[in-house]
Amino acid sequence: MKVGIIMGSKSDLPIMQAAADILKQFDITFEIDIVSAHRTPQKMFEYATTAHTKGIQIIIAGAGGAAHLPGMIAALTPLPVIGVPIKSSNSIDGWDSLLSIVQMPNGVPVATVAVNASQNAGILAAQILGSSDKTILEKIIVFKNELKQNVEKASEDLRSTSPKKYL
Amino acid sequence: MKVGIIMGSKSDLPIMQAAADILKQFDITFEIDIVSAHRTPQKMFEYATTAHTKGIQIIIAGAGGAAHLPGMIAALTPLPVIGVPIKSSNSIDGWDSLLSIVQMPNGVPVATVAVNASQNAGILAAQILGSSDKTILEKIIVFKNELKQNVEKASEDLRSTSPKKYL
Amino acid sequence: MKVGIIMGSKSDLPIMQAAADILKQFDITFEIDIVSAHRTPQKMFEYATTAHTKGIQIIIAGAGGAAHLPGMIAALTPLPVIGVPIKSSNSIDGWDSLLSIVQMPNGVPVATVAVNASQNAGILAAQILGSSDKTILEKIIVFKNELKQNVEKASEDLRSTSPKKYL
Amino acid sequence: MKVGIIMGSKSDLPIMQAAADILKQFDITFEIDIVSAHRTPQKMFEYATTAHTKGIQIIIAGAGGAAHLPGMIAALTPLPVIGVPIKSSNSIDGWDSLLSIVQMPNGVPVATVAVNASQNAGILAAQILGSSDKTILEKIIVFKNELKQNVEKASEDLRSTSPKKYL
Amino acid sequence: MKVGIIMGSKSDLPIMQAAADILKQFDITFEIDIVSAHRTPQKMFEYATTAHTKGIQIIIAGAGGAAHLPGMIAALTPLPVIGVPIKSSNSIDGWDSLLSIVQMPNGVPVATVAVNASQNAGILAAQILGSSDKTILEKIIVFKNELKQNVEKASEDLRSTSPKKYL
Amino acid sequence: MKVGIIMGSKSDLPIMQAAADILKQFDITFEIDIVSAHRTPQKMFEYATTAHTKGIQIIIAGAGGAAHLPGMIAALTPLPVIGVPIKSSNSIDGWDSLLSIVQMPNGVPVATVAVNASQNAGILAAQILGSSDKTILEKIIVFKNELKQNVEKASEDLRSTSPKKYL
Amino acid sequence: MKVGIIMGSKSDLPIMQAAADILKQFDITFEIDIVSAHRTPQKMFEYATTAHTKGIQIIIAGAGGAAHLPGMIAALTPLPVIGVPIKSSNSIDGWDSLLSIVQMPNGVPVATVAVNASQNAGILAAQILGSSDKTILEKIIVFKNELKQNVEKASEDLRSTSPKKYL
Amino acid sequence: MKVGIIMGSKSDLPIMQAAADILKQFDITFEIDIVSAHRTPQKMFEYATTAHTKGIQIIIAGAGGAAHLPGMIAALTPLPVIGVPIKSSNSIDGWDSLLSIVQMPNGVPVATVAVNASQNAGILAAQILGSSDKTILEKIIVFKNELKQNVEKASEDLRSTSPKKYL
Repeated sequence: MKVGIIMGSKSDLPIMQAAADILKQFDITFEIDIVSAHRTPQKMFEYATTAHTKGIQIIIAGAGGAAHLPGMIAALTPLPVIGVPIKSSNSIDGWDSLLSIVQMPNGVPVATVAVNASQNAGILAAQILGSSDKTILEKIIVFKNELKQNVEKASEDLRSTSPKKYL
Repeated sequence: MKVGIIMGSKSDLPIMQAAADILKQFDITFEIDIVSAHRTPQKMFEYATTAHTKGIQIIIAGAGGAAHLPGMIAALTPLPVIGVPIKSSNSIDGWDSLLSIVQMPNGVPVATVAVNASQNAGILAAQILGSSDKTILEKIIVFKNELKQNVEKASEDLRSTSPKKYL
Repeated sequence: MKVGIIMGSKSDLPIMQAAADILKQFDITFEIDIVSAHRTPQKMFEYATTAHTKGIQIIIAGAGGAAHLPGMIAALTPLPVIGVPIKSSNSIDGWDSLLSIVQMPNGVPVATVAVNASQNAGILAAQILGSSDKTILEKIIVFKNELKQNVEKASEDLRSTSPKKYL
Repeated sequence: MKVGIIMGSKSDLPIMQAAADILKQFDITFEIDIVSAHRTPQKMFEYATTAHTKGIQIIIAGAGGAAHLPGMIAALTPLPVIGVPIKSSNSIDGWDSLLSIVQMPNGVPVATVAVNASQNAGILAAQILGSSDKTILEKIIVFKNELKQNVEKASEDLRSTSPKKYL
Repeated sequence: MKVGIIMGSKSDLPIMQAAADILKQFDITFEIDIVSAHRTPQKMFEYATTAHTKGIQIIIAGAGGAAHLPGMIAALTPLPVIGVPIKSSNSIDGWDSLLSIVQMPNGVPVATVAVNASQNAGILAAQILGSSDKTILEKIIVFKNELKQNVEKASEDLRSTSPKKYL
Repeated sequence: MKVGIIMGSKSDLPIMQAAADILKQFDITFEIDIVSAHRTPQKMFEYATTAHTKGIQIIIAGAGGAAHLPGMIAALTPLPVIGVPIKSSNSIDGWDSLLSIVQMPNGVPVATVAVNASQNAGILAAQILGSSDKTILEKIIVFKNELKQNVEKASEDLRSTSPKKYL
Repeated sequence: MKVGIIMGSKSDLPIMQAAADILKQFDITFEIDIVSAHRTPQKMFEYATTAHTKGIQIIIAGAGGAAHLPGMIAALTPLPVIGVPIKSSNSIDGWDSLLSIVQMPNGVPVATVAVNASQNAGILAAQILGSSDKTILEKIIVFKNELKQNVEKASEDLRSTSPKKYL
Repeated sequence: MKVGIIMGSKSDLPIMQAAADILKQFDITFEIDIVSAHRTPQKMFEYATTAHTKGIQIIIAGAGGAAHLPGMIAALTPLPVIGVPIKSSNSIDGWDSLLSIVQMPNGVPVATVAVNASQNAGILAAQILGSSDKTILEKIIVFKNELKQNVEKASEDLRSTSPKKYL
């Protein structure tokens, strides 16, 4: 397992699933679990302090509200941690999750992505692995090319029809 | 020691000092220490999981930026935790500290006071002890009376001079 | 009655009910009432100034918009006051309620919990009582253990199924 | 005395002075006092419930942070209340003061002016009196004309010099 | 007509209707019209500069988004102007409307009420008239008493049933 | 083609359509395309660096979230660029789009309109063309007159019915 | 005069001067004046309704706080209006100015630039003129090239010295 | 060179220097340059599209205001990009920089750190390299241990002196 995906609550799974999906698409192995900073702090400690000894290279952590999971994991592991702020029902429009994750103090960074952007967390994990693995780097290049082609396809569709009809 | 005062960094001491001062004024014993959620997580774990076994009844925790200390302490102790959001230099005007502390998930509350309001954290600790200790309750009543008298004194000063001169 | 739960309006009851429910679960006696700072200020004064003489040890107050109830109660009682910011229909996404409750001036703290987090207000009340009552403290420890077990159960479910199926 | 000017703390006087100054300029009688919602709640009650019986027609109330004074006065008096949000040192850039004053619930309005705008509070008080008093209304018209002339004077100065020199 | 109610757009009528309703309840005469600062500026000028000559004593103006109507009316009339920030579809959650109305410069106040609070605008207009009209002042006192009785009724209902059933 | 309308994603078309519609109404020729700063950066470069050589006089660019398209186009063209912040599903209530577009550094302005206000972007483009083209200027004057007449019609409707019935 | 630069107050001149300076650099004629929406509304009306008849092609308007000048000018002129939000002393960190200017309703756009970015307002005015004037367009291209060269010069300086020394 | 550090302006160097300093401390080679998305877009394109071919594994990009540099670099490179939001003089308290960098659309992540936190950007780069390089991973572990020891030293100092004296 190269990537560990964790989230603070079962209710975060619909958001965090996209990180798993994109890693699967890149053929990158991962494990997925629920680890709560506030309700299972001992499990979080064990998870974070042992991950790098088990071959995990990157941890993706998603949480909402006063989102402490990514930052606490970052405090306990030497690995890079990617944080996904989740706009959960107990969040103030995502502002609390975002600030709780991104505003980490000196010494303990969390690589924060956009609110609810767990797919981007998976892509960033792939890019991190790709930075020292040519095979994955190539896949990123292919993936970015597909993004481009999708936009070009939409552009062609738009221009070949009247804008009115497109809607 | 009835109250434990902790803070995430040495630089928080000028703010957190006011909690100690007011507890001293109420003759409530306390200890004070620096415990960082992000830089000394093991110490934080030990502190939080043992505090109630050492006679501590309330923990006051201050932190800035992505302020995880109060919430993580609350995750680890059965005691009430009072959180002080600190508007430190690495904070976005205190919004990050405030939201990181107050927006805790169901099951793990932090009793949050105003930004930089460590004196109020000390008063709240006294009120918590006073809720089951008549002597302290009486001191709170006296303290509130003094607050009233200070305002009344200022009111008399203002009215006995021309407003212009007062400035 | 150890805890008084009050709210500014009948419409706050669906939110504030959770405070009552969790106190019941902890076998802590409480009373519940509607007391409006703005529409029944005299009743609020009487409630707040007499609560500690009637055996109440903690007051939980919820309000929305320009939420003055928790702070005014805190001004009038020596007891600890827990404030619940309510994201009511006449609130700007809860920001007004939160700031009106948490940003209290020196001398008059309100123990503020997250927006709409009345369950946490009840748990905090239990923790406050538990700080000087071993029986309640034990119940808090058991409660926190249940939180942990719920997360562990969810974790097992997630790992024993494919993430896809879990959704 | 037609207007009562009150403020939550002695430290609000430098801001609130401008309300007194402009009323003096309009020859409108006023009284000025310090009345704290949180530290002298009984005095606030008495002030607010008796003001209309003493001939006061409008109350101007300034406060900072979780600013409850204007709203609580409005709860207790049938008179119009003008609220001045003060950006005090214990305020989050004035946002807390502004929201605590303006977002009042149905039934209990506060006529809110801009942050720190106590001069405007005084002008608004004059306009309110002027709405049923021709002499004051005339003064408002003259005052507005002076505002216009000041701008016209500045405009002439600017155009008669090179912009560079003006700076 | 003592009160002029105006709004920037036909779509503001469902919100502004409440101002009319409460004035009717207080037997205060009013007129209601659509006047847009941005689309009918000349009409706005004429309305604002002549209102006080036609016996109008107070103007209530509601607008959304970059809400310039209340402030421009205030620039053009010596009468007190009450501003209602409207959370319209082209508003950023009401923040733009609120700030565009309340943050007026020195010399030109707008008496701002809460977002969408047109009922409160009507009550404030009544209070302004009541400040120099005993009959209306009495009606305000009666109205506030009814507010109190409604809360007391709700309080009785709550206490006479189990909270569970109340929901 | 005098105006180029571009947008970052196919999903922005329902919003951006209004810019096309209003230009059609003003008989101003335009082209419309999907150009993504992040997914088709080369296309964006080519589009922006060649537009002024193909007779395009104004570029309207709409984008959501971290909206870089308008600012990057502005970096690459000497033409005026109008930016439309889009409140897309991956936006924090439009705040991110607005700030990403309007807060451009010295030297590289973007003419920013309101969130989702693509119709206004089209009108602004017409006004820019109209500033040196009398025929278009006349159309703007007619258009503004129609805005006025629509408000006047609504005003008549409102005054000729009881407000109650109007709703 | 091709461009009219106006501002709400004399105190805005230090900010607005940069618009004049850059227009001078582009050899574009302009006039500059103080026109207050709130204090000289009649002058504003006259200015806005006559500007296009006097040969002015673009109006740049700067204002702070509840900044109504740019939007009201836009309501009254068929010309394009560029708005500069000013972070004046009576502004809440520029948020009020920005939202009051950018969030204009359908039909009446203001081309908004960044907070205090009056230089960019001047550049945008030049770009608007340049969109139908090759000479000015060429100057914009030269100007952008100078921006590039300044950055390249700074880049060379940085790389030719140790970063440490550079500071 | 393993890491490329770039920034939008010479004025960002005092902030971005800390990224260079920490990389030096970890013996990780890096290059540093000024690359402006808005003023040198071609250079940015070349830099971003060639970096991975020159052996660079990670790009750190800092920018303020409408900060497009990190996101545009991310659009053009398959490498992981770390974004540093800079609270520059033309920024609204850092909110614009933060949102412009973190809120990237699906497909193009930027690993965002806290406002002005360029040291953390350097540490994150080291962690990314360390995730596949044991030597660097060991250095991270040592570094984190030093962070811990610094806090422990401060803790000892605090406890061995009276808190009063410490200040």
